[in-house]
Amino acid sequence: MLSVVILGSGNVAQHLIKALYALPKVKLLQAWARNPERLNHLLPSERITGDINNLEPADIYIMCVSDGAIKDLSETLPFNDRLVVHTSGSTSLDATDAKNRRGVFYPLQTFSKDKDIDFSTIPLCLETEYPDDYLILEVLGGALSQQVFKIDTPQRQALHVAAVFSGNFVNHMYALAEQICRKHHVPFEVLLPLIQEVAGKVIYLSPAEAQTGPAIRHDEITIQRHLAFLNNQSLQNIYTLLTKSIQRTNE
Amino acid sequence: MLSVVILGSGNVAQHLIKALYALPKVKLLQAWARNPERLNHLLPSERITGDINNLEPADIYIMCVSDGAIKDLSETLPFNDRLVVHTSGSTSLDATDAKNRRGVFYPLQTFSKDKDIDFSTIPLCLETEYPDDYLILEVLGGALSQQVFKIDTPQRQALHVAAVFSGNFVNHMYALAEQICRKHHVPFEVLLPLIQEVAGKVIYLSPAEAQTGPAIRHDEITIQRHLAFLNNQSLQNIYTLLTKSIQRTNE
Repeated sequence: MLSVVILGSGNVAQHLIKALYALPKVKLLQAWARNPERLNHLLPSERITGDINNLEPADIYIMCVSDGAIKDLSETLPFNDRLVVHTSGSTSLDATDAKNRRGVFYPLQTFSKDKDIDFSTIPLCLETEYPDDYLILEVLGGALSQQVFKIDTPQRQALHVAAVFSGNFVNHMYALAEQICRKHHVPFEVLLPLIQEVAGKVIYLSPAEAQTGPAIRHDEITIQRHLAFLNNQSLQNIYTLLTKSIQRTNE
Repeated sequence: MLSVVILGSGNVAQHLIKALYALPKVKLLQAWARNPERLNHLLPSERITGDINNLEPADIYIMCVSDGAIKDLSETLPFNDRLVVHTSGSTSLDATDAKNRRGVFYPLQTFSKDKDIDFSTIPLCLETEYPDDYLILEVLGGALSQQVFKIDTPQRQALHVAAVFSGNFVNHMYALAEQICRKHHVPFEVLLPLIQEVAGKVIYLSPAEAQTGPAIRHDEITIQRHLAFLNNQSLQNIYTLLTKSIQRTNE
């Protein structure tokens, strides 16, 4: 049975600990954290350590730490030639110290502290330095999720940028819509069915084909009316830039 | 029983005809279209007309035509003092000719030609010139949907702009993400669970509170890495503007 050690105590670490601990096919040996008490609610105390020199031998070590901490943590590990992976979307495989066999285990999802997440639906993007290690990481990925992808570092960096557009920037569009609603005393909830429909549509239709609205129709009357209505330089700049981008994309 | 006549044959007209014709509590008397054959698959031929002088007396006439056609069509109507509503989000109530009692029946949703839509989940934004007519329009709205809102013209115009941000612009973010994926040979489907999670989160959390990502963390290293990776002036401009907007919104 595959044995795993988790390093870290943040959102990703906690969600991963919960998911792995529930799996019959994987043995979650241990979790390490600089502040081990942050894991007390997730694991029995004998499986938690705050001492990096106290790590047990395992098939896979998963570093769930911030991008900037990957290099340092991997240098601190008191062993060689074991499979050590990080979980960062934007960090190269070789950020990890070369004394161990390196890999990446990147779950492409947004993790909230207070919301349980179903790992079986999360795309896992895997990469390893050595082909044999890919087979090991794939077993772990397959035990957690139905969606496992072999993704190299440039591909993963593309996904990370694409996730900013389709996740962070999308959420900001919702936030701007909420701001407009609030200013004009309309409940934001009126927009929720539209939001769900637009997000649901791209499951079966390419977003390029699904585009609707005044921009793609070159409906200048509505566009000018919207810009006048917004009456806010920052919102107008965003409206104009995205309208032009839609029109250029569909030329 | 409330009697209704639909004027038009576009997407909204067709979806509305389908929904109304299935309702036991409303009598869909007739549909008029400049090209009546476009409605043949939806209604028996005796309920379709191409002659505006042939319209039957009804409680409500719903004009499902493009914004620019509302004024002309309403002037052409060969009767006075009946309840005539348009379905436009961005058009004022008084675009309709004043010889009839005016109103607005705006379903806030994106309508696709080939996809059936469940009207009961669509927010209906209603407005009437006279209070008594609101009660009539509300009966129709309540028969179609569980979400009926009293929304005046400025509020509706705010919703229409907000829908561009949370619908059209959101879809364009998906399209840009797809473009980035394609360029780097990554399947866009890897992003679908993230897209669904982000859209689902705003049902119970304000988008302002749900914001994540490098912009709100002021993670300059990741932001600069993303900009360098994009290597495309138009995408870089959008990335920079939205990053600044997220940071300004959360100051």
